[in-house]
Amino acid sequence: MKHYIGVDIGGTNMVAGIVNEAGQTLRMVKIPTEVQHGGEDVVRRLAEAIEQLRADVQVPVEGVGIGVPGFVDHVQGTSVFAANLGWKDFPLAALLSARIRGLPVFVNNDVRMYVYGEATGGAGRGFQHVLGITVGTGMAAAMFNEGRLYYGSGGRAGELGHIALEGIDYACNCGLIGCLETVASATGIARQAREAVERGESTVLAERFPGERVQEITAADVSKAYDAGDPAAIAVLQRTGTLLGRGLATAITLFSPDVIVVGGGAAQAGERLLKPMREELQRAALSFYWKDLQIKPAELLEDAGVVGSGLYARGRLEAGEVL
Amino acid sequence: MKHYIGVDIGGTNMVAGIVNEAGQTLRMVKIPTEVQHGGEDVVRRLAEAIEQLRADVQVPVEGVGIGVPGFVDHVQGTSVFAANLGWKDFPLAALLSARIRGLPVFVNNDVRMYVYGEATGGAGRGFQHVLGITVGTGMAAAMFNEGRLYYGSGGRAGELGHIALEGIDYACNCGLIGCLETVASATGIARQAREAVERGESTVLAERFPGERVQEITAADVSKAYDAGDPAAIAVLQRTGTLLGRGLATAITLFSPDVIVVGGGAAQAGERLLKPMREELQRAALSFYWKDLQIKPAELLEDAGVVGSGLYARGRLEAGEVL
Repeated sequence: MKHYIGVDIGGTNMVAGIVNEAGQTLRMVKIPTEVQHGGEDVVRRLAEAIEQLRADVQVPVEGVGIGVPGFVDHVQGTSVFAANLGWKDFPLAALLSARIRGLPVFVNNDVRMYVYGEATGGAGRGFQHVLGITVGTGMAAAMFNEGRLYYGSGGRAGELGHIALEGIDYACNCGLIGCLETVASATGIARQAREAVERGESTVLAERFPGERVQEITAADVSKAYDAGDPAAIAVLQRTGTLLGRGLATAITLFSPDVIVVGGGAAQAGERLLKPMREELQRAALSFYWKDLQIKPAELLEDAGVVGSGLYARGRLEAGEVL
Repeated sequence: MKHYIGVDIGGTNMVAGIVNEAGQTLRMVKIPTEVQHGGEDVVRRLAEAIEQLRADVQVPVEGVGIGVPGFVDHVQGTSVFAANLGWKDFPLAALLSARIRGLPVFVNNDVRMYVYGEATGGAGRGFQHVLGITVGTGMAAAMFNEGRLYYGSGGRAGELGHIALEGIDYACNCGLIGCLETVASATGIARQAREAVERGESTVLAERFPGERVQEITAADVSKAYDAGDPAAIAVLQRTGTLLGRGLATAITLFSPDVIVVGGGAAQAGERLLKPMREELQRAALSFYWKDLQIKPAELLEDAGVVGSGLYARGRLEAGEVL
């Protein structure tokens, strides 16, 4: 069995792991990213972590896949722009490969890595057309079709979080008004709950988070209040699921996936969110888009970035082409 | 130079032409489809027309491409479902090929053929990511990326006409409410003008189309009234362009094209429609989706279906794979 190294680089930590060709992780290591010392320093420490993993596990490794936030040139292996890493046109693949004895290094956007992993080794396995979404701090999406990721111009395709929807009037960080992400995200769920408290609605969240502590409400707290039958929490998740379903109705009409894989922290709200999402999706899209559509929770969970990146390295090496 | 035959089958007529590898038509012929005699009869008469074209032009022909409305299995070459032809799982490629001395026949959806033609030999030539839309009797769209058409599950991707938008409350033929096509189409433009007349608005269309003749208003009449400075006609095209721009803002955020090619009869409204469309698109989408985006009128016009189908046959033969 062949082995690969998958890496997920975030603003705070980077995680690297040895992944076998079946998508199982043999060993993982997490180290702080510490972007303030510059990209070359990040690469140096990542190379050390990779060499340590190889020494520990003692299996031959075929290549490395790295998921990076922001815009990526996956052909050149460069980080074109990553705001929270401070990288611009940073030649990540070349620099890292030179430090790990020339092992091939493949770089892609972190959301595409997650969707690649779910499509080839997770909840989307066996489907031809996979739409993967993450509902976490923010919201993101990517498509995988017939063995390939979908990029679009500049690799910018799939920003489902930034389509404007009727019924949303929040200003988004991106500068637009009414972006889906302002509601359908952990941040958006917490914000709606906070506003319910501030409006003086009768909710257990008002008792649990009195005064200034209202700022501490998280999406998980909203799920807990939902389970206690709290009407305000139920209304928030109902509205969030409905708007997510409305956005997905548009996405499936344009992309026509076989399956939607839902991941990310806020997706842990599960059926509280997915039930109103499905209902709205079926109301707002033509039936032939949803009658055979599967909607599944992500399978790879916390390892998704590492497994996806490892499997992506495998795909790139096997296909001999740019996926 | 190599030659191909391109065919566009519609509910009323079918057009066949000899197309060279540069996308020029050498000779075209139009014959009635006469679907009432059944598919085998359509194929028999289409085969005769093709053999006549070959006899007339006397150039060797490499293959045939056929655009068909509705759902198509482009791998098998079958018309899966075409409502206005009465076809269901009809093996068009196999039946036709058998009647034209085994010449290879490739079948695809007519809108994808048009977009293939524009992307490879029309207004989208030279771009990697082409979103083609037709604003005609109805509205349709397809994507062409890095040398391939985008299909999605069941070949159903790209139904931009059937995304529901804020500000539209017409019932659509498809059963949904608020579909973009109910406004952004020749039918939709005419309907809005008719309603303005029926509401008693002051418009030259009320004088030109008195009483029951209001039913005769066409999209072209609305453009004429617009050019005469008619406020009602200006409002209709302004609203239509704005809503089209809102739909495209979502489409470019998900697909990220380099260029949008706009074709179809209603697209002849030109800047009357495209100006408000661009303005809304720039208001409603992130700037990195539109700052380098080109928006171009279709180049192939009436021949688009034939040229697209001919070039598609060329693409299939050259690629040796399913495009």
